Amino acid sequence: MKRYEKFADAIAELIRTGVLMADARVPSVRHASQHYGVSPSTVFQAYYLLERQGLIHARPRSGYFVNPLASRPFTDPPVVAAPAESTPVDVSELVFSILDSMKNPQTVAFGSAFPHPTLFPLQRLARSLASTSRDMDPTLTVTDLSPGNPALRRQVALRYRLAGLDMPMEELLITNGALEALNLCLQAVTEPGDLVAIEAPAFYACLQVLERLKLKAVEIPVHPRDGIDLQVLAEQLQRLPIKACWSMTNFQNPLGASQSEAHKQALVALLHQHQVPLIEDDVYAELYYGPHAPKPAKAFDRHGLVMHCGSFAKSLAPGYRVGWVAAGRYAQKVERLKLMTSLCASMPAQAAIADYLEHGSYDRHLRKLRQALAQQQRSMLAAVAKYFPASTRVSRPNGGYFLWLQLPDAVDSLVLFRLAMELGISIAPGPIFSPTRRFAQCVRLNYGKPWDQVSERAMATLGRLIDQFGA
Amino acid sequence: MKRYEKFADAIAELIRTGVLMADARVPSVRHASQHYGVSPSTVFQAYYLLERQGLIHARPRSGYFVNPLASRPFTDPPVVAAPAESTPVDVSELVFSILDSMKNPQTVAFGSAFPHPTLFPLQRLARSLASTSRDMDPTLTVTDLSPGNPALRRQVALRYRLAGLDMPMEELLITNGALEALNLCLQAVTEPGDLVAIEAPAFYACLQVLERLKLKAVEIPVHPRDGIDLQVLAEQLQRLPIKACWSMTNFQNPLGASQSEAHKQALVALLHQHQVPLIEDDVYAELYYGPHAPKPAKAFDRHGLVMHCGSFAKSLAPGYRVGWVAAGRYAQKVERLKLMTSLCASMPAQAAIADYLEHGSYDRHLRKLRQALAQQQRSMLAAVAKYFPASTRVSRPNGGYFLWLQLPDAVDSLVLFRLAMELGISIAPGPIFSPTRRFAQCVRLNYGKPWDQVSERAMATLGRLIDQFGA
Repeated sequence: MKRYEKFADAIAELIRTGVLMADARVPSVRHASQHYGVSPSTVFQAYYLLERQGLIHARPRSGYFVNPLASRPFTDPPVVAAPAESTPVDVSELVFSILDSMKNPQTVAFGSAFPHPTLFPLQRLARSLASTSRDMDPTLTVTDLSPGNPALRRQVALRYRLAGLDMPMEELLITNGALEALNLCLQAVTEPGDLVAIEAPAFYACLQVLERLKLKAVEIPVHPRDGIDLQVLAEQLQRLPIKACWSMTNFQNPLGASQSEAHKQALVALLHQHQVPLIEDDVYAELYYGPHAPKPAKAFDRHGLVMHCGSFAKSLAPGYRVGWVAAGRYAQKVERLKLMTSLCASMPAQAAIADYLEHGSYDRHLRKLRQALAQQQRSMLAAVAKYFPASTRVSRPNGGYFLWLQLPDAVDSLVLFRLAMELGISIAPGPIFSPTRRFAQCVRLNYGKPWDQVSERAMATLGRLIDQFGA
Repeated sequence: MKRYEKFADAIAELIRTGVLMADARVPSVRHASQHYGVSPSTVFQAYYLLERQGLIHARPRSGYFVNPLASRPFTDPPVVAAPAESTPVDVSELVFSILDSMKNPQTVAFGSAFPHPTLFPLQRLARSLASTSRDMDPTLTVTDLSPGNPALRRQVALRYRLAGLDMPMEELLITNGALEALNLCLQAVTEPGDLVAIEAPAFYACLQVLERLKLKAVEIPVHPRDGIDLQVLAEQLQRLPIKACWSMTNFQNPLGASQSEAHKQALVALLHQHQVPLIEDDVYAELYYGPHAPKPAKAFDRHGLVMHCGSFAKSLAPGYRVGWVAAGRYAQKVERLKLMTSLCASMPAQAAIADYLEHGSYDRHLRKLRQALAQQQRSMLAAVAKYFPASTRVSRPNGGYFLWLQLPDAVDSLVLFRLAMELGISIAPGPIFSPTRRFAQCVRLNYGKPWDQVSERAMATLGRLIDQFGA
């Protein structure tokens, strides 16, 4: 990341968080150069960049000012109360009909769950694939089953160490992506008919796993910044025989909430008090925009009750289907379920990722990826400000690649989905994120693709469609 | 395969099947050369080879004679009656404790479930991995989810076509190996507590899948040559509310039985009459020793009731974890379960296998593989004849890489397993192949590794251990 880009980012952050309001003057070149310790030419380059991004504009002989649309004071989506009772889960038909309709690659994929593959070092990974598969000891293909490739597990343990966690190799199991890990964890601690505390809204894949395992959901509201509501969770743990809790602690899908360390600590303590395992879905952990990696709740677990699930699908190697789980006291049970379900993860993919982590430049790639996603978020927020009704409420997560929007009351997001699909734009409508099909006015938008004219026009089109609901 | 090898194979087959008995004179060089249309030098080369393999020996001035040990008239293992009632399945502890103890790569792996990786074209596959991953269209990683890589599904459909089946692409789903396919199929047609007809003995992975899904087993005896007993199956379908039937129609693991076409046809008709789906586990289909590929039962299914599961793990690419299922009328349900379980199979592995099937020489590799396995079977049978008690009964499958042995009554195969492990030899003891832990006198031996002195010595050691039981 170049110096001027870093400085531009700092100013963009001030705008995004409302420190620099609409029409405010941004620091003068002289002031900025003195105050931030950068050269005047760096400041100029940064301001040109911010101008191109539509965040500021120049006024003759007065300097640069914040673009009114860029700094619109966004309002968080509201916290929505959840039903008190548990619900059997039956969302698959709806989810699949929506996912099916998105398959056309010509569609503008705001409804997608994935970041765009051009953001990933696929060529470099191909080199790792070629070299590791050429040199592979053939006996590995039969001896190197689950828990998985030892070199890869060592690399994963090293990354835990960087985050301050001492993770014993024996606890780590490689899986076919995080989705399989989550399936195995939930199966390890439940029987059909059991109750599971989940977030509301929740990622629809979580709902599908519950449905597949015939479990009932107890929805716990998620605050758009703080994460799962501990007060409500405590009450429900008191009232109901909950067998497990599933939470995305960092950059929650779809709301984008990230729990503070204190919040995570309290969550772990609360669940420990009730002896309820936490299934921690942490697939976006590496996609933070701030200066520091967020810790997982697992870091505060002293009793082996947290099953921490991660993946390389969102940060490095989409399509390789390599994830993992550190399942604490359930590690052996989960490993055996894995052996009974699919034996092991694909070995060439495991070996290639292990090689890349050792010899590639994962951290440099991650820095570029985070920067790209943060900038794409700014572009999409600016488009929301420009094209969507003033009463739109929107999340501004500090990581990941999703916005969660609460649209005006007149909007039905399932209808909006169908109208938008007819115009070649997909969105993820709110009701697929809830077993009780709530969030009818909400949509999740994916900004995981580099922003371009097509994205901009699609947002304008969505804005027009939304306006029609009021009329 | 060279001409003399082909001729040697023909003679070996005559010996193996008992057409040429112990001490019989093999055809003279002149007779053979005239009768089989090969040159005298080809016959000589073939006889030298058979001599090295221990199948024949020369007597001065009299010609070649069948080695008594090579032609010992093996007796089939007996058909063992199964309990009439259904059984909850709980074998995992036993199976895992046995599998765990086999992990040492120094062990002589007669207990292994895999063929030896040196039999596979891993270098050529590595080239396919390198070229397909280098040229991969990045958008495939998000658009190319389940049902799987279209080029690979096309190649699988082509192979079905070679076997005389018209398989629509839409029916084919790529999975993380056949084990995942079998899991998904069984889940698609059962609820926890349901009854499933399985084979006795059955591959222990089948038992583990039933256990994981909390299903009950109805054991149907398997005849060592003909396969699953249709009479008993018909009676049990009459008596019990069976929801699915799981059968390995070709080279059944562990018995090696292969159903005739008529048998398969009758099986499909019987199940159709009761509207019970057949889960056809056909992972050894390509490992036939005869001149023709056996047809799957799926070939006789006109109602979409057969779910046919295949894999490349045993014929081409161990460790890649690429299998598939053609699930008939359940195809959509199985695909959706797959999406909910693990999204899709690893994409680099899928693309590499597709490329190999299109540009490699799969059929040539398979011919070599089949020939190697058939020869390894002869070596292991000769060792059984040489070292094991005369009352040993043994299967002689026409494909795959397992022998199933019934040892003298005094033998407890779980004790034999532990004694052999102490001497660095693994075997697969009979009780892990049954939910009721029967087959205490049986073992399954793997001949999937090229035969050598180590194999020979290990068989001698096993023979001595077995002898001790009587004493």
